[in-house]
Amino acid sequence: MKIVNRIDELRRLLTEEKTNGKTIGFVPTMGYLHAGHLSLIHAARKENEIVVISIFVNPLQFGPNEDFDQYPRDIERDEALAREAGADYLFYPTVAEMYGEQPMVTVKVHQRTDSLCGKSRPGHFDGVATVLTKLFNIVGPTRAYFGLKDAQQVAVVEGLIQDFNFPIKLVGVEIKREEDGLALSSRNVNLTADERAEAVHISKALFKIKEAIDNGVTPEAAIAEGRGYLQGHITGTIDYLEGLSYPELKPITSVSAKMIVAAAVQYSKVRLIDNVIISNEESRG
Amino acid sequence: MKIVNRIDELRRLLTEEKTNGKTIGFVPTMGYLHAGHLSLIHAARKENEIVVISIFVNPLQFGPNEDFDQYPRDIERDEALAREAGADYLFYPTVAEMYGEQPMVTVKVHQRTDSLCGKSRPGHFDGVATVLTKLFNIVGPTRAYFGLKDAQQVAVVEGLIQDFNFPIKLVGVEIKREEDGLALSSRNVNLTADERAEAVHISKALFKIKEAIDNGVTPEAAIAEGRGYLQGHITGTIDYLEGLSYPELKPITSVSAKMIVAAAVQYSKVRLIDNVIISNEESRG
Repeated sequence: MKIVNRIDELRRLLTEEKTNGKTIGFVPTMGYLHAGHLSLIHAARKENEIVVISIFVNPLQFGPNEDFDQYPRDIERDEALAREAGADYLFYPTVAEMYGEQPMVTVKVHQRTDSLCGKSRPGHFDGVATVLTKLFNIVGPTRAYFGLKDAQQVAVVEGLIQDFNFPIKLVGVEIKREEDGLALSSRNVNLTADERAEAVHISKALFKIKEAIDNGVTPEAAIAEGRGYLQGHITGTIDYLEGLSYPELKPITSVSAKMIVAAAVQYSKVRLIDNVIISNEESRG
Repeated sequence: MKIVNRIDELRRLLTEEKTNGKTIGFVPTMGYLHAGHLSLIHAARKENEIVVISIFVNPLQFGPNEDFDQYPRDIERDEALAREAGADYLFYPTVAEMYGEQPMVTVKVHQRTDSLCGKSRPGHFDGVATVLTKLFNIVGPTRAYFGLKDAQQVAVVEGLIQDFNFPIKLVGVEIKREEDGLALSSRNVNLTADERAEAVHISKALFKIKEAIDNGVTPEAAIAEGRGYLQGHITGTIDYLEGLSYPELKPITSVSAKMIVAAAVQYSKVRLIDNVIISNEESRG
């Protein structure tokens, strides 16, 4: 695995690979890799001749009161994990390499952002879409891999690729979970022991809601019951527990082909998110 | 020359050309081609193996009170001219092909837009940057060609390519002029005979200003005198006559490597723009 810090160098190396007709799978991350990220690398490894992973904690997608400074970082460990998982290139630029002093252009996201995390993180998805526009142009991948834990991010990236006509196939990869069901996240390391113990109930609540809906309970009733369960079992603050169409993220109607039930819980130093995606059954509604 | 209306078809054809290692020169236009556009095609023809011209009157870059409907169109004539000038592909999509019902993402331009045309056309360059982001991703050119008549547009495109890391070389091509000096524009056809006759003084004023600055007159004094000349010779309204650094479009300082003096004049149905670019001489200031 080759580690590259400079945009020009990565472009030169990947242009050479592409000239030789190779397909490129791209896994953009903010580092502090866990098994979820590694599953993205594995998926990219299976479907492409070259695998590129980027590690860049993107300041543009953090709000002024968010955890940019506290976001965990461990590049030596990440290098070893990415190498072992089978990446060919690790792109690890500095903030100065990625952004000039003042941005001249950014991406503005107009849809799929007024619910879930977008509601409480104004500008977050503009920052995500801007850095991905840059990374897509730097890497020029055949396929790009994103974890479905950030399901709203996957929905926004789908809009970005579609509206800006990026010649890239988006691949959303299933959530990886701890044995007790907690969705893997780089941020889990910032939970206290007590928070970590009770956080299991977030996924439990979501699984209960999914099961109820699959069994014919209306989404409204299932989510209300799930909310009661969650409130009774955790001390963290429920930022949201919501059901929406997916990937449009609009109110659910009987014609929505797919829905998402998503939760965000705020703990002392960490905000956790999780979700389940539910296919529309003829019987529902 | 092959005429293509569909994004997917153009992408398929150009991917094939690129697989064969061919370089692609791209000339994005709004059609109603004149010798200025043809000079862009000629420049692209010289430097690339494949030349793509697009014709798309982009609604996103017209304000609600601007001339989107009146913008001249003549696709049959354009086809003949583009073919004769040596283009290989003419991309001519509908508005529906380029934009969905509601855009999910657009480009926001933060710099180089608060002066000259940007000042009186809010959102114009956001529309330009958005359609170019799409076209760049659809065509994937090696080089993109723009006329320096829209010098602010060239400055914005330079920012777009730089900030979004498009792997594209920007080529700015000199202004083409009528024999009397009037800058060629698709909009000139909408001038009355009297307006057309007096419009010659726009470029005359700019040439006088350039000559004065080259001869050591300060930009401020030269522009003031040019403004007096212009006001004495035209009935159209001077929207602006301004000197700025180029391509930054900031107030001129003695360290500005290059400056632009640009003018916009509003006539009954048309707004004309023109400019001269002046290299900093040791002697100036």
